[in-house]
Amino acid sequence: MTTLPELKKWFNKNKARIQEDYFRFLRFPSISADPAYHADCIRCADWLIDYLKKGNLHAERIETPSLPIVYAQDLSAGSGRQTVLFYGHYDVQPPDPLELWKSPPFEPTERNGSIYARGASDDKGQIFYAICAIQSWKELGAPLPVNVKFCIEGEEEFSSRGLSEMLPSLQSKLKADHLLVVDFNQFDPDIPAVTLGARGMTAVEVTLVGSKSDLHSGMYGGIAYNPNRALVELLAKLWDSDGRVQIPGFYDGVEGPTAEDLKSFEKRHEKEYYTQNFGIEAFGGEKGKSLHEANCFRPTLEINGIVGGYTGAGIKTVIPASAHAKITCRLVPGQDPVKITNSIVEFLKRHAMKGMKVEITTHKGEAAFRSKADSKLSKAVAEAATEVTGNRCRFLTSGASIPVIPNLMRACGAPATGMGYGLDNDAIHAPNEHFDMHRFEQGFLTVGRALSLL
Amino acid sequence: MTTLPELKKWFNKNKARIQEDYFRFLRFPSISADPAYHADCIRCADWLIDYLKKGNLHAERIETPSLPIVYAQDLSAGSGRQTVLFYGHYDVQPPDPLELWKSPPFEPTERNGSIYARGASDDKGQIFYAICAIQSWKELGAPLPVNVKFCIEGEEEFSSRGLSEMLPSLQSKLKADHLLVVDFNQFDPDIPAVTLGARGMTAVEVTLVGSKSDLHSGMYGGIAYNPNRALVELLAKLWDSDGRVQIPGFYDGVEGPTAEDLKSFEKRHEKEYYTQNFGIEAFGGEKGKSLHEANCFRPTLEINGIVGGYTGAGIKTVIPASAHAKITCRLVPGQDPVKITNSIVEFLKRHAMKGMKVEITTHKGEAAFRSKADSKLSKAVAEAATEVTGNRCRFLTSGASIPVIPNLMRACGAPATGMGYGLDNDAIHAPNEHFDMHRFEQGFLTVGRALSLL
Repeated sequence: MTTLPELKKWFNKNKARIQEDYFRFLRFPSISADPAYHADCIRCADWLIDYLKKGNLHAERIETPSLPIVYAQDLSAGSGRQTVLFYGHYDVQPPDPLELWKSPPFEPTERNGSIYARGASDDKGQIFYAICAIQSWKELGAPLPVNVKFCIEGEEEFSSRGLSEMLPSLQSKLKADHLLVVDFNQFDPDIPAVTLGARGMTAVEVTLVGSKSDLHSGMYGGIAYNPNRALVELLAKLWDSDGRVQIPGFYDGVEGPTAEDLKSFEKRHEKEYYTQNFGIEAFGGEKGKSLHEANCFRPTLEINGIVGGYTGAGIKTVIPASAHAKITCRLVPGQDPVKITNSIVEFLKRHAMKGMKVEITTHKGEAAFRSKADSKLSKAVAEAATEVTGNRCRFLTSGASIPVIPNLMRACGAPATGMGYGLDNDAIHAPNEHFDMHRFEQGFLTVGRALSLL
Repeated sequence: MTTLPELKKWFNKNKARIQEDYFRFLRFPSISADPAYHADCIRCADWLIDYLKKGNLHAERIETPSLPIVYAQDLSAGSGRQTVLFYGHYDVQPPDPLELWKSPPFEPTERNGSIYARGASDDKGQIFYAICAIQSWKELGAPLPVNVKFCIEGEEEFSSRGLSEMLPSLQSKLKADHLLVVDFNQFDPDIPAVTLGARGMTAVEVTLVGSKSDLHSGMYGGIAYNPNRALVELLAKLWDSDGRVQIPGFYDGVEGPTAEDLKSFEKRHEKEYYTQNFGIEAFGGEKGKSLHEANCFRPTLEINGIVGGYTGAGIKTVIPASAHAKITCRLVPGQDPVKITNSIVEFLKRHAMKGMKVEITTHKGEAAFRSKADSKLSKAVAEAATEVTGNRCRFLTSGASIPVIPNLMRACGAPATGMGYGLDNDAIHAPNEHFDMHRFEQGFLTVGRALSLL
């Protein structure tokens, strides 16, 4: 067995090399949402496969109809031992708005001990420390106490479409006793966390088309109905004044947080925290729900993007031909993503201004997941994290989504345990995303140590 | 005196050269709204001054705090004769969205007899035929029957801020008996028009800021109030279900079209025309008003641009830090632009979601103008246009704006007559703006001939 002091020593000795490789990983602009970057995604996957191979794991590229999955395994523990499947992703969110980055998103830069780059935290940093943990065991010469498998996909930020499609055919390859999802947060830098649930998601894009081309707002003002106006009028109907989403059936099957939920899962911050850290003074969620309830146990609907007409400097007196919005929902256990998506589409079509052409694109949705706290892996990770940090590990559910988890659980036949040292001010999905080598090390040690405790 | 046949002959003889120079004029990306193009605006002004000088006019650059005015004059008719002040502009609208142009906006291209370029119609094409008309008189050797002055500004598409500021100091220079605004439309390619009114305008930009930076829609969904949501909810309040603008005092002073208005001014198209030509099936304007009333005699409020969050390909699960909208109003006689602007600002501040930071930029507004049909110049232009086209010239008021006109009328001491051979499907302010040499020639002949009739 490899001990915690040995892991620490190995990490310190190899830190420069690890950071160098971590930076290499971060330099790939592996943006799955934008087809212009798909070649970069593939280059990133191939680099990761090479890296895993150099660490003496069997590694391969699993093709999908879209972007490839990086798969790796070390089954040297043998069939009598348990198998842990690690899940993570090598793709990242688009870096827009670019002008707000203090250093280029794909040129990792260290400032005040933090590494700034798109993916530094989500999820390249996190999955990379897990890989390094396995590497350390192998370099230290101790036989791995469990079999390990890695499933590192390239489309987590784009609804995991390739992996979702391939899962039915990957059941035997991914079969495991435990699924460790290394893509989660702690809620305080000093307090480690194991995450046992996340919300599901569904996404719809809507475009209202009012005319064949942009129109002069003087010559046509009073004649053409402005698609920007039709869009704001339509989208404003999505909530009532209590913040309840008005899509019919949206809350069907949702049980508010149970007393047990509220007991099992650690409560997080109050309004003051968000005001101080993020400047938030207007709060969302339904009337009467606490922030913790609204974020972890209630579904939400967000307009993630809206655009119509002239958006450059100054004024342009135009009635645009069309206006566009991107909508996603976070779903909780009990909600059916297909039903929700269909219901949104119907709502948008029914309530759009008559005469506007309504164009809709839907993306495949996925349900929420929720695990129990008593699995062997959850307990091992929590114990390791407590040892590593010196603070008792807490159990959380997340307001975020890793939509593929429910299907992945079914495919590998194991419950999911979520871990991670991300922080909610890592600015993931935002400009100036960052992570730091201290938390990278804690993640590394937690994974490395947990293996001994299984 | 120069006769219509002489003018026609001169035009045909010089057509190639005229078109070449017209193309040169169009190649300058003289976009006043975007500071990135201000050097191009100045180059455009200087080119035009050289061109006027080559035509033996006195021409000069009048500096303003922003972009220069091109001024030219020929006072050879002498102090016993009347003076006509021509107004036009050398600046153009931004060409976005660029991807919809079939040929580059600043590379004039002839297709099916039409010249495609930004500014081909609005207003480079129109002011240029007026310049050519003066040039033809001078080249043909007949003494000009009137004194002529040109005031060609560089910020008509950006609220005429430079000219507006300079007008008080330009009163003696611009003094005239007649003001001919060469920036208007006919409503049918076969029927010429004189325009005796246009709507005023005011513009407000609003940004709602919800947090210091973009946020992950899972981690903060239910916590942060989404600025996109706050913006659509705010903007949707701008109209009631009858399409009446809800800004307090918005309609103060507005007299619906009088019976005389409806008699004097030519009615234009019905819904079918707009559906067929522009694909418009949803119509704006207040309930119960005809399209003609709503466009020419009633004020409007339009969202010309809206943007917030991720607007690229695919989906990005973000709650943006802020969301932005650009709003303009078209004003009719009786409305005070300053009062309207202030009232919009108050409305936006009062109705925005509490806790959202509301940032507002206002632009200087201008009132509508309306002239009488019995001025000597209006009658001369109408008669010339009737002769040139063979069809009776009609009197119109325009739904569009040339906000500086009321101030320009005061400065030069003359009523305004609007003329022009623009068509409402010239796609001005839109991709693939175009004009054609046939209408260019009609404009040229109308101006040239009108001089003899004064």
